[in-house]
Amino acid sequence: MLVIGERINGMFKDVAKAIQEQDKKVVQELARGQLAAGAGALDVNTGAAAADPRPAMQGLVETIREVTDAPLAIDTTKPAVMEAGLKAAGPGSIINSTTGQQARLAVLMPMAKAYDASVICLTIDEKGVPRDAAGRAEIALRIVSAAMENGVDMPDIYIDPVVLPANVAQPAVKEVPTSIRDIRLLSEPPPRTVVGLSNISQGTMYRRLINRTFLVMAVAAGLDAAILDPLDAEMMDAMITTELLMNKNVYCDDYLKAYRASSSG
Amino acid sequence: MLVIGERINGMFKDVAKAIQEQDKKVVQELARGQLAAGAGALDVNTGAAAADPRPAMQGLVETIREVTDAPLAIDTTKPAVMEAGLKAAGPGSIINSTTGQQARLAVLMPMAKAYDASVICLTIDEKGVPRDAAGRAEIALRIVSAAMENGVDMPDIYIDPVVLPANVAQPAVKEVPTSIRDIRLLSEPPPRTVVGLSNISQGTMYRRLINRTFLVMAVAAGLDAAILDPLDAEMMDAMITTELLMNKNVYCDDYLKAYRASSSG
Repeated sequence: MLVIGERINGMFKDVAKAIQEQDKKVVQELARGQLAAGAGALDVNTGAAAADPRPAMQGLVETIREVTDAPLAIDTTKPAVMEAGLKAAGPGSIINSTTGQQARLAVLMPMAKAYDASVICLTIDEKGVPRDAAGRAEIALRIVSAAMENGVDMPDIYIDPVVLPANVAQPAVKEVPTSIRDIRLLSEPPPRTVVGLSNISQGTMYRRLINRTFLVMAVAAGLDAAILDPLDAEMMDAMITTELLMNKNVYCDDYLKAYRASSSG
Repeated sequence: MLVIGERINGMFKDVAKAIQEQDKKVVQELARGQLAAGAGALDVNTGAAAADPRPAMQGLVETIREVTDAPLAIDTTKPAVMEAGLKAAGPGSIINSTTGQQARLAVLMPMAKAYDASVICLTIDEKGVPRDAAGRAEIALRIVSAAMENGVDMPDIYIDPVVLPANVAQPAVKEVPTSIRDIRLLSEPPPRTVVGLSNISQGTMYRRLINRTFLVMAVAAGLDAAILDPLDAEMMDAMITTELLMNKNVYCDDYLKAYRASSSG
């Protein structure tokens, strides 16, 4: 499974401060630390800290590129900032994100093609987030069509069925694992699935417990990727164990150690 | 979800010793402790410790009955020991267990009817444990037929799709959640599902992590009951959180405390 490390995001205080003070070391340490903990890609989000987000994104990407060639997920809603990030990061990057709205797909799918990037696509349209898995599948199908029209390969499409916080949208939570199963049936080869994990526990009392429990449910449903904090070792243990039980990796007694040795190589 | 506490079993050293020395206190403490931790029923197994298992089962059940009226799962392969246990425990007990073999079903289904007991039925037949979920469904269907023929209500049937250890039967593990989903479709109302959890981690290095991760996967698939050690608080936290995320209990900030307050009432 692809773990996309969430920590290089201006919404975290340490990163906001580092961006403002142009302190490369904090960012580079977070890049190295997340990769060593099992991340295969790194999310990059300038947050609200930067006065001008375009050079801020470019600077942040270049700072990370000094220490790793790992794929970067350029995390912004602004197309111009996205393009600056993709240019600086190079081919194999991830667009994070587009919704299923035609106007956005019409801009970001061609951009994915032009920059040889994958795309995270949220199952959100003009009416917002659908109530159930069926509504998510409908939007996912529109995303799959847009990808085909633009010549973007299915394995480069990451559909995110949108996790809502358990404390405000409890009945919607179980729709996500169902949706992950549904999305895998939409085409052959199927698009991939991804979740932004930490949203599930926003405002709750037991954030880490809820995060890792929901992650197990999603991985068991066939999840391909997740944006999460790989520095949470208990969460990574739960994820690695679920993949083992789903027969994705071969059993050995110290499978936790084996996984970490192979992923941080 | 029904938690059946596994600790009163002669395979555990403390219990074997208590049975041999007729030390009621150890057993009664385990009964109270498991119920307080969230168990709704208690498994009772004399193990190999007793020279004559029939009076041993009767004595063990009577010892527990001095401190609680909770349902007991009489855990033995011997019909005569089962009957002694059911008599001593009273109506509402659980037969643990029968397989899907006709000869065993022909004895234990009428016994369930006669003693107003539920029955745990393993999806095992003359050929052993099936390789996949489809094979398990076939045996489960035979179990459902046998229950109908004997007038045992579906909610009193607990079908166990048989968990094999992850270290020796890794590819079989993921068949169990699939099987849990399948079994719920066999009749209306459906039979219930149960697993004997700790088997998943036999001989492995990270027993508790594997136990609780697999439990999340099974509960997310719709599991109705599990035989497990409720004194493992991290496992209970994972189970309670999964039920919350599956919308089985209403969210409140301290849902762990709320669950425990209501279950140990």
